Order: sequence, then structure tokens, then C-alpha cells
Amino acid sequence: MSLLVVGTVAFDAIETPFGKTDRIFGGAATYASLAASYFTKNINLVSVVGDDYPMYAIRQLNEHGVNTDGLQIKDGRKSFFWKGRYHADMNSRDTLDTQLNVLADFNPIVPDTYQNCEFLMLGNLMPRIQQQVMSQLKERPKLVVMDTMNFWMDTAWNDLMATIAKVDVLTINDAEARQLTKEYSLVKAAQKILKLGPRFLIIKKGEHGALLFHGSQVFFAPALPLEDVFDPTGAGDTFAGGFIGYLARTKDISFDNMKRGIIYGSAMASFCVEKFGTERILNLSQEEVEDRVQEFVDLVQFDITLVD
Amino acid sequence: MSLLVVGTVAFDAIETPFGKTDRIFGGAATYASLAASYFTKNINLVSVVGDDYPMYAIRQLNEHGVNTDGLQIKDGRKSFFWKGRYHADMNSRDTLDTQLNVLADFNPIVPDTYQNCEFLMLGNLMPRIQQQVMSQLKERPKLVVMDTMNFWMDTAWNDLMATIAKVDVLTINDAEARQLTKEYSLVKAAQKILKLGPRFLIIKKGEHGALLFHGSQVFFAPALPLEDVFDPTGAGDTFAGGFIGYLARTKDISFDNMKRGIIYGSAMASFCVEKFGTERILNLSQEEVEDRVQEFVDLVQFDITLVD
Repeated sequence: MSLLVVGTVAFDAIETPFGKTDRIFGGAATYASLAASYFTKNINLVSVVGDDYPMYAIRQLNEHGVNTDGLQIKDGRKSFFWKGRYHADMNSRDTLDTQLNVLADFNPIVPDTYQNCEFLMLGNLMPRIQQQVMSQLKERPKLVVMDTMNFWMDTAWNDLMATIAKVDVLTINDAEARQLTKEYSLVKAAQKILKLGPRFLIIKKGEHGALLFHGSQVFFAPALPLEDVFDPTGAGDTFAGGFIGYLARTKDISFDNMKRGIIYGSAMASFCVEKFGTERILNLSQEEVEDRVQEFVDLVQFDITLVD
Repeated sequence: MSLLVVGTVAFDAIETPFGKTDRIFGGAATYASLAASYFTKNINLVSVVGDDYPMYAIRQLNEHGVNTDGLQIKDGRKSFFWKGRYHADMNSRDTLDTQLNVLADFNPIVPDTYQNCEFLMLGNLMPRIQQQVMSQLKERPKLVVMDTMNFWMDTAWNDLMATIAKVDVLTINDAEARQLTKEYSLVKAAQKILKLGPRFLIIKKGEHGALLFHGSQVFFAPALPLEDVFDPTGAGDTFAGGFIGYLARTKDISFDNMKRGIIYGSAMASFCVEKFGTERILNLSQEEVEDRVQEFVDLVQFDITLVD
């Protein structure tokens, strides 16, 4: 039961009201792979970096059970770099610098040993590259989860629509769901998006939780109320990684199991934001994960006695 | 097991992206009483109107089991009037006109027949008036729930603090919790507010649900994802009325029962916003209420299998 993760492996430089970092390791595929590694050990990565990327960052991935045979290392080139500053509310941010570098001409190659994966996580990346990876798989995975962002709605609409049409689960945030459909109501937006192809839609609302839509069914998972959100970078990718990792572990893609996957994904995301970058999700114990999930159970569980 | 409700009974004129109303019946006590009436029939109202207030609006309250002996009708005076316009997101609004009228010199009088109430709802009103009502009760109610708003933080800070110190449950929205404590984190804000007097705190987050804090415990109830929010006016009062009405009905003020109360309050609020003013909550069947509560159960319920 293998999981293929595609997405960026990159340098981030982050400023929040709590401090700032130099270049730290990040990227959608880094966060998603690390989060998934708490649930399944058969994780295959497809991505690209320059030769400025430190070997020990790659070793960290390997030590979490992530196979990096599909991680291209480009000699004499630089890795993708993003620099951003979060506002006081932590829900909005300014991009201060983006250097595509090796990502500009990335041509993903899925190694033969990666074939027959049953779960595919298409982390946020050019939709064209997400499609290229899908087309290289000889057998369609059991479940394809795709994350994307508003940038591709602005710059690669047709590619994005073609990619969305081919996946099983789409994850986007609330503002992006509204931009994609021109609907303010998330219920109406979800109805429109489910007609574009995906059978499942996850709308991420950051500190306000996440919604899962499937047909006429809807499930809501809260975010854990935290004393401080230290750095939101990678929280969405960590959520997606925890979600698909849990599904790969349990081998069950029913709506009911996706609910559980969303709770596990939310738990992983709640760790991610507690420290800068990947620091918190690099060193979790299984017990910490289970305790955190129990906090979600306690947060929302009630038994109702219907009034007669 | 009687419930005493104090708050405004007023005219509202409302503009939303869906339309606008002339003067319609509203006010915190109107919404809270109507919502509570689906759970308990022993409801006593303390408020004030001018003689411009139509008799049939009062009769509507009576028909819902609301005793209006404590509703003062001032000859030759006008009722409180509020006019507002909601923005496209329905989360923010501009006040276009406020005419205090009879509210300016309101001197609440609790009728003798209202004594020995076990539940007291202090709807949003000058904190001084909320206190006056409490001081007229010969026996302290079993539970006092207080709603308030940012306006009193700006204009009547000392009165507000003195009133908050005396209640069991405080309900405010997220922006107000932040303003009250100068803390952005709602967890930190809640910790501070629970030191001001109330043993329970409900932070209302509108379309993002509500949080209940008590000691180190926290419970989260989502808002129901709706296709359209037609008019948010009175949703917070309806929530509070449904909450305290459910508690009065079940005679149980434990944390676990408050969770249920919040779900019932949220269900009532979800009806309120579906039409202008009180229209939707005037004519609900018990079955509609129970069906709506079941939608909340379906929305958040999951059974977790902890990963070994």
C-alpha cells in the first residue's frame, strides 16, 4: 500500500509576529510526506531541488521512511525559494520574494519502482506538472488527492480545470473555493466544485476548521483552539499529508473513514503551527499524535437527548 | 422552573444584499424569548416600548407563552429603533441609525409574580440595567446568562465589569473577547475572562460556530453550513435564547448539558438567519427543531479508531 507524494521541496524564509527565520526546509511535499510518515512508511517522493539543498534535509526525509529516488537534484542550479511575512492575525500574509529556480523547468519523472502506488498526493504545484505525474502512472491509483491555490486560478486556469477534472479529492481554502466558483456561500461553491470532477471536496478554513463535502453529505472538523499559532507555513500541506497518510494506513476510502482522516490531518496541522517550519512535525511520538486526536474528540463530542 | 428574560423589544430596519425591510419587530429580548419558547413555556419578559409598538407584536409573544406583565408601555413615547446595513459577507454591518427613545431612561421593574425565577437571561442592554434587574431578585437565580457587546466596552467599562463579575455565563463574540482582554488568541482571552467572574464563557464566532470554555475544558459547536444567510439580525440573541431555554427545560446546568444547550442554541440561530427578522423563528414545529439538531449531529459526528 504505497503513497506517492508530488510537490515542492524548497527553502522558506518566514517572518511572523513571533520572530523570523533564515532559509529553512519546506515545500508542500516536505510537509505532506513528513505528516504522512506517522501513518505509513511506504512513501515515495517526486520533486526537484538544486545542489544548494543540504544532504541532511534529504536524510531527514529518508529517516521518516520517505523514498527520495524521485527527487531530482539539479547540478549548478538553485532550489525553489519563498519568503513571506504573516500579519498579526496569522490568517493573511504577504509574499516578499519568490524564486522559482529549478521549478521553472521541472520535468517530473516517476521512477519505475514507484509504479502501482495506490494513493497519490498531488501537492500544490503547477497543474500541468500534477497532470504529467498522473499520466506517467500505468495504473490509476485508488485515490488521488489534489491540493492547489489561487495562484493557478489566476495564471493557469485551463490546466487547472483539466487537472481538477481527474482527481478524487480536491483540497482548497475557503477564499479559493469562492474564487473558483464566484459563489460566496461555501455550500453553493461546494456544489459547483463537485460538478467539476472530484467526488470529494475539502474546504480548509484555517483556524476555523475544515469542511468535507461528498454528494449531499457534509462533515465539519474544527481546528484546535491554540494559545498561540506560531507559524502557519505548511499547515495545509501537513493537513493533507496526515489525511492521505491515515487513509493509506487504514486502506479505507469511505466517507466515514475520510472523516477520521480529516481529524488526523487536523491534529497533524495543529502540531505544525506550534513551531517554525517543520520543527514540530519532525519529532512527534505516536503517543503525542493519539493524545492530540483525543483532544479533538473531547472538543466536539456531545451526546444529544432529543427533547420529546 | 421559570425563565426571566431582560433585553430590548424594538423596531429594526434592515438592509442585506437580499433586500431591505421597513420597521420590523426585533430586539434582543424578542429573539431570545421566542427561541426559548420552543423549550419552556414559563417565560417572563422585562423590557420597555413606546405606544407606537403594535399590540399584535406583543400578542405574538404571549402566544408563544411569553408573559409580558414586565413589559412597560410608555404613553406618548417611541420605541427603541435600530437601522443597519449588512455587507456582502454578512459578517460585518454598518449602523445607519440608532434612536434610543424609551430606552434612554428605562427603569426596569421586576413584577412580584416574576420572583423566584431559576434562570435569568440578561440580553444585550446597558450593563447598569442588567444589574438593576439582578438586584431586584430576592433570590439569586440558579443560572444567570449575560450577553453584551463592544458598545458597552467603549462607553460603560466600569458598569460592564461590575455586571460581568456577577454572572455565571457570559456570551460575547470573538472580536469582543479580543477587545475585552487585548488578547488575539481566543484561548488566552477566555482564560482572562474566566477570571473576571463567569464560570462559563461562550465565544460566538458567527458562521464559524461557537466555543464554550469552563475551567480548562473547551467545547466547540459548528454553525450549520447554509446555502444562504439571508439576515443575521438577532442570531446571537436567538442562540442565547435557545441555549438557556434548553437548560431551563432540562433543569441541568452541568458542562455536558451546556454542550447540548449550545447545539440547540446553534440550531435555533440557523433558522433565524434564513429569513428577515423573527419571521422564521415565529413558526417552527418541534419536528423542524429536532431535525435541525440531527443535522448538527451528522455534521460533526465521527467515531475514531485510534491507530495502534
